[in-house]
Amino acid sequence: MSNTTEDIFKNVIAHAKEYGFVFPSSEIYDGLSAVYDYGQNGSELKNNLKTYWWKAMVQMNDNIVGIDSAIFMHPTIWKASGHVDGFSDPMIDNKDSKKRYRADQLLEDRIASLDEEGKTSEAEELQLEMDNALKAENLPRLRELIIEQNIKCPVSGTANWTDVRQFNLMFSTQVGAIADESDTIYLRPETAQGIFVNYLNVQKSGRMKIPFGIAQIGKAFRNEVIARQFIIRMREFEQMEMQFFVRPGTQREWFDKWKETRLKWHLALGTAPEKYRYHEHTKLAHYADAAYDIEFNFPFGFKEVEGIHSRTDFDLSQHEKFSRKKMQYFDPEVDPETGKPYGNYVPYVIETSIGLDRMFLLTLINAYEEEDLSTEERQDSRTVLRLHPCLAPVKAAIFPLTKKDGLPEKAREIMDSLKLDFNLQYEEKDAIGKRYRRQDAIGTPFCITVDHQTLEDNTVTIRHRDTMAQERVPADQLDKIIGDLVSWKNVL
Amino acid sequence: MSNTTEDIFKNVIAHAKEYGFVFPSSEIYDGLSAVYDYGQNGSELKNNLKTYWWKAMVQMNDNIVGIDSAIFMHPTIWKASGHVDGFSDPMIDNKDSKKRYRADQLLEDRIASLDEEGKTSEAEELQLEMDNALKAENLPRLRELIIEQNIKCPVSGTANWTDVRQFNLMFSTQVGAIADESDTIYLRPETAQGIFVNYLNVQKSGRMKIPFGIAQIGKAFRNEVIARQFIIRMREFEQMEMQFFVRPGTQREWFDKWKETRLKWHLALGTAPEKYRYHEHTKLAHYADAAYDIEFNFPFGFKEVEGIHSRTDFDLSQHEKFSRKKMQYFDPEVDPETGKPYGNYVPYVIETSIGLDRMFLLTLINAYEEEDLSTEERQDSRTVLRLHPCLAPVKAAIFPLTKKDGLPEKAREIMDSLKLDFNLQYEEKDAIGKRYRRQDAIGTPFCITVDHQTLEDNTVTIRHRDTMAQERVPADQLDKIIGDLVSWKNVL
Repeated sequence: MSNTTEDIFKNVIAHAKEYGFVFPSSEIYDGLSAVYDYGQNGSELKNNLKTYWWKAMVQMNDNIVGIDSAIFMHPTIWKASGHVDGFSDPMIDNKDSKKRYRADQLLEDRIASLDEEGKTSEAEELQLEMDNALKAENLPRLRELIIEQNIKCPVSGTANWTDVRQFNLMFSTQVGAIADESDTIYLRPETAQGIFVNYLNVQKSGRMKIPFGIAQIGKAFRNEVIARQFIIRMREFEQMEMQFFVRPGTQREWFDKWKETRLKWHLALGTAPEKYRYHEHTKLAHYADAAYDIEFNFPFGFKEVEGIHSRTDFDLSQHEKFSRKKMQYFDPEVDPETGKPYGNYVPYVIETSIGLDRMFLLTLINAYEEEDLSTEERQDSRTVLRLHPCLAPVKAAIFPLTKKDGLPEKAREIMDSLKLDFNLQYEEKDAIGKRYRRQDAIGTPFCITVDHQTLEDNTVTIRHRDTMAQERVPADQLDKIIGDLVSWKNVL
Repeated sequence: MSNTTEDIFKNVIAHAKEYGFVFPSSEIYDGLSAVYDYGQNGSELKNNLKTYWWKAMVQMNDNIVGIDSAIFMHPTIWKASGHVDGFSDPMIDNKDSKKRYRADQLLEDRIASLDEEGKTSEAEELQLEMDNALKAENLPRLRELIIEQNIKCPVSGTANWTDVRQFNLMFSTQVGAIADESDTIYLRPETAQGIFVNYLNVQKSGRMKIPFGIAQIGKAFRNEVIARQFIIRMREFEQMEMQFFVRPGTQREWFDKWKETRLKWHLALGTAPEKYRYHEHTKLAHYADAAYDIEFNFPFGFKEVEGIHSRTDFDLSQHEKFSRKKMQYFDPEVDPETGKPYGNYVPYVIETSIGLDRMFLLTLINAYEEEDLSTEERQDSRTVLRLHPCLAPVKAAIFPLTKKDGLPEKAREIMDSLKLDFNLQYEEKDAIGKRYRRQDAIGTPFCITVDHQTLEDNTVTIRHRDTMAQERVPADQLDKIIGDLVSWKNVL
């Protein structure tokens, strides 16, 4: 059994593949870097995470609605948002190894080494120099710092560096067949802009009154130079974002509210609170006046899972400027100070943005346990996914004890009576103990066994994943027993 | 009130925008051709269509599982599938107007004119010549036929044509930052290949036995030259595909079964059967040994909504060839003829493939009614979406009769007791009649009014969308009344 957290992470990745959660994409063609596919259990778990978020955000809040905007958008949108000019990493190549690196990451690594060596003031100075160079987009200065620090390529061992160049992270493609209609468009690097450009369409057609929110789940794409850590940083990923539109001046109050609300959403799944923490951004993005991350303690350390950002009126104002369309909202509410309606303004925005794939990985890692079941007589163990029942891909497995005496038929009959309400699995192969282990491995909360007694009194054995306890219950109560445990009421 | 089917179609498009179903994408930037966004009611309706399909295919069939594979795939996959070489349209430009056309469509239009003029044998001959040229990929011959037929550009009125060239419909992009790692990849033009390349991963990790199916819902992209008819042909669209793996020789039987099963799925929503028809493909794609479309009678005629294709072992065999990985399944079942197991083979595949956006449009058009409610005393009308309650974006709207006397509080209380189970809307503005009309327009099956009597005896008025009938019911029965009508049991 493994001990180190690194081993655990490796085991989770292997488990994810073996049990149909996550496959490397295009595996038979030796894979595609930083792209993954969700298997039969992974897609169900992912769907359940989406449902949990959508219900919590959209269904439970009558001032939040959802949309589903396209990945393709007008290219000027990414001019307005700043992505065409600003969404890039400074890259530098080593001329000997031909390897490319992020210039700022080479310097960050150097700062960390200085810190470790106790050279705190040197580290601080370098940090300051780098920050200034990045802020001023002074690429030659970044190169100078690398040379000054005598940073070498770990592959070639030389400091034979090219110039630093900006590399945009957006994927582009050509749309249209007719030459003069042909145009470069981008795969959206975030779903948020699809909400901003539609905000007045939604507000008007939905008669929304401020404060209100628009939520969206969808794919986004970033041409990451260094994609890594399994599904933590992928080139194609999925976001669950909500933009909440508020009256200017009230943004801090709503920011605080959403910061708390979102952490509660995570904790409602039963995850130990100490595995989460807030991280306040001290360096704010140009559009933000406050920003917190919600971080989770992954085996490789605390990492962002969700961001809560107070984005001011930056995005809407930019779209007003670039599209030349009014992005103002008319607020009929009366301002108690002036006695007049607040009138027209561009709303401020609080954003909650969660990476669905990271949330998926967090859920898997948090649920994964290699449990020692050894007794004095014999060694035994199992791998169990202690997923919240609401999230479990399969809610219950139905087993006939044997393949004969009409038990499979009876098991099928029970299955048919439940399958409309729950995702179920039927298994008749191997000993019951082996079947339990397979269900433990995919996190199925209940195993239901149909035996000869079932034919007599219509009772079945129900075995609980976490306690492994078994009890005998009437088959016609299964609907309620399973329903109660997997109900969204338990988390919402 | 409009009469022609063309008017109806225009009205549906306008209605879809006005009531938050479908917005032109990037509208404030004057739109992006052939791309649309789903609004607050559209995204709910789309999600409900997905749920209906997923439940019918995956949850109700224990030999079908779902996956969620990435849009980015290894580029060789599209070599193997034939898309790199064969997924293109023959295009021709008029030198005077600079307009581009599909060469085969110019000829198809000509054949239709000949038919209308009664020149049947000429039409047949041209059809044959064109088919031969297409089959032989003889592009110069296609041009000759256009010249021979004296086909003119409708814009310039001249027959001054360029050569015919192939134009590939896949979008491409560059992945990776490091120059020598950089590679061209495609946005998938169909979701099916994501299933084929994962079929053994799913089969092994899920212990699936033939026959079994793998289902997937996801985006696909085609650089359509002529994108048209609202969301019927978009450059970015969503598919719901299921690939069913069977023993070679049994494909016809499974093809027939899926052909029937899929039509039943459509009809279970209550759509008039005469609005649907089968269309048999007489010209089969190179990979198919049988193919039927399910067509719906749109205002612009019968159009494909879903395809059922017997794809043979073409795709899996191609992937075996291009990936050099075995794609065989070992079938332990005993062949009654030989008394031995069937053993190793590459399975045959039956595909069911439905365009989610077309299904969405079909649903909207089929539900849309401009209803005349005039009596002898006064003229009246309403626009109502007669959506199946399972599909309705909002299941019930809750109205306090007035904004005072504690009615809003009581209405909120009832709403809070129901909102976990149903997507609801709260409305207190305007007269009740006006609120009914707004809910009719988005297809809400129930409107619930809280009045002064509610405060006394906890009963409410429930008003039914289709009949407009009202009845008084105890508030604590609402859960059951709504639940029964919107239950998936009604369609599954």
